[in-house]
Amino acid sequence: MSELRKDPIVDRWVIIAAERGRRPTDFEAPEPTIPEAACPLCEGNERMTPPEIWALRPGGSMADEPGWQVRVVPNKFPALRVEGRLNRRGEGIFDLMDGIGAHEVIVESPRHTWRMADGPPEMVDRVLETYQLRLVDLYRDQRLRYCVIFRNYGTEAGASLSHPHSQIMAIPVVPRRVKGKLNAARDYFERKERCIFCDVLAQELSMRDRIVIENEHFVAFAPFASRFPFELAIYPRQHSHDFTAMSPEARASLAGVLHRCLAYLRPALGSPSYNYIVNVAPNPTPRPGKPYYWSTLQFDYHWHIEILPQVTRIAGFEWGTGFYINPVAPEDAADFLRNVMAQDARHTSSAEVISGDQ
Amino acid sequence: MSELRKDPIVDRWVIIAAERGRRPTDFEAPEPTIPEAACPLCEGNERMTPPEIWALRPGGSMADEPGWQVRVVPNKFPALRVEGRLNRRGEGIFDLMDGIGAHEVIVESPRHTWRMADGPPEMVDRVLETYQLRLVDLYRDQRLRYCVIFRNYGTEAGASLSHPHSQIMAIPVVPRRVKGKLNAARDYFERKERCIFCDVLAQELSMRDRIVIENEHFVAFAPFASRFPFELAIYPRQHSHDFTAMSPEARASLAGVLHRCLAYLRPALGSPSYNYIVNVAPNPTPRPGKPYYWSTLQFDYHWHIEILPQVTRIAGFEWGTGFYINPVAPEDAADFLRNVMAQDARHTSSAEVISGDQ
Repeated sequence: MSELRKDPIVDRWVIIAAERGRRPTDFEAPEPTIPEAACPLCEGNERMTPPEIWALRPGGSMADEPGWQVRVVPNKFPALRVEGRLNRRGEGIFDLMDGIGAHEVIVESPRHTWRMADGPPEMVDRVLETYQLRLVDLYRDQRLRYCVIFRNYGTEAGASLSHPHSQIMAIPVVPRRVKGKLNAARDYFERKERCIFCDVLAQELSMRDRIVIENEHFVAFAPFASRFPFELAIYPRQHSHDFTAMSPEARASLAGVLHRCLAYLRPALGSPSYNYIVNVAPNPTPRPGKPYYWSTLQFDYHWHIEILPQVTRIAGFEWGTGFYINPVAPEDAADFLRNVMAQDARHTSSAEVISGDQ
Repeated sequence: MSELRKDPIVDRWVIIAAERGRRPTDFEAPEPTIPEAACPLCEGNERMTPPEIWALRPGGSMADEPGWQVRVVPNKFPALRVEGRLNRRGEGIFDLMDGIGAHEVIVESPRHTWRMADGPPEMVDRVLETYQLRLVDLYRDQRLRYCVIFRNYGTEAGASLSHPHSQIMAIPVVPRRVKGKLNAARDYFERKERCIFCDVLAQELSMRDRIVIENEHFVAFAPFASRFPFELAIYPRQHSHDFTAMSPEARASLAGVLHRCLAYLRPALGSPSYNYIVNVAPNPTPRPGKPYYWSTLQFDYHWHIEILPQVTRIAGFEWGTGFYINPVAPEDAADFLRNVMAQDARHTSSAEVISGDQ
């Protein structure tokens, strides 16, 4: 059983996921490269994973058999487990609890070599729909206060399997970093009666020099204070706190924007490793003894996606300060991406506008 | 001129250090490996760096000539520059200022192949004394609100030159991450009239299972909520907010502890990349119009060193939540290090005690 431990000084939680019987140095052995035939996420190898949680099987095939398009399985080496109680406790000055939560792998395609950047958007759309379905299901468990949906692509971004997949982790606390965003949204709304994310988006749309691509429902831009070269954000144009409430029509348009952002990072950075994170609101279920704003807080929030290419290293300055040094101005990154897209306009559907200040 | 930009939602500062005339993709070219003869930090190549700021020259040699033991030069590609004014301003909803600050390189040895983990502690002591001298000097500039002293060792930790060196960056704001620690220390002191760092140290010393090494002045331990495998912290045993007030005697004993921590990470992790950070208090100079606690806040703080081996990757979960997943329990890491040290006891001086719960 893993443990959640809280740093007593800065309120930062850490998951200590030490497996029993391993020596402390064992983890450093590099992951062996898995040949495609032995990939546990490939079609035909369904028995190599724990039993599936959910799968999209248009032909009606049996669970844990071939015939799926998207498949969700528990992580074989989960950092958190669903069974058990939180068992919150202290050890002197320290706080800890058992590692309760969920850790699922979303296998995005039966094909080992599919890349999200290759599209088509319809395949990305299925993945996004799966995120929605899993989020609804996981938030039925009131112990799970927050879900983070993310994709690690490439070894620099922490991926250990090359088969296309995302992950979803549900945790029993709202992380301090997420609280920071939630509190900022709430404070701003109390002061201005407007959403801070909506206002940032309006500012970006009026300045235009960091906008990369936009359509009826979504805007992708290189944020003003980007931490990383070619960092991108995708915001829904309409205010919404609820990722699961996104309509199928809007979701299809998000699939197009997300796919194209990833596709156009390749000419910019040469198929970079990246992480993307779907930032959703916490589980809104009211809890006994908590004030009512626990269930209303969400409405100030504005869900969004962050795409973080991993081409620079986090070093001592970043660890010591939480500042980041970014060697590429976001305006230059956006300009570069717009130019590549314009050259490749045959892939642009008529519903999409490549932004530019021309 | 680089820019400091603040994220409008989470109050995170970013340094946009784009050099003019570079294309946005240029930075991805890997650093060429520099042969020793062409290393700008080596003795004999002093003319390859900007003019030196300070050097330890026991034989009294000339500035920017050979004959030094430790040498401090401005970073040739500084993220921040000392000249100019902050020029704080807004662009609509966004806040930014010019990239004012200092960015210095502390060349720790004239020898290209010296490793801090090799010692002897006397050479580490000279480096620590240099940190003290530079900190005193930089804090004379009231624009510089905070200094971070750090060492990046190995490519995984962001080092781009292999010649032994540390860096010191002085910035015009107190970072949010540092404020988090300062506020925690102040709040705890107001509630308990005790230092939170002293209490954490007392707790660790009473539990003993995470203590790695201690002497009269310092204690090194694997923190309860370690983010990384074999993460270590070094706290002065006596409460002190002021790194520059450390006596030469205490500094010599810190040099011994620091050197040994780095030396014993090698059998544990096979010469890992690591960052260490000397966490010092902000510049205590009172500023006009600021409340008096700007100059008293410091006394609650307790300076300390963090050693962060970089053997795991930061991935989407960490970016999305600020949580970390650590596959090695700090108790196991400490136990491993104590055992290696005990086997190597011939290097233990009589003044030092290898900790253990035996």
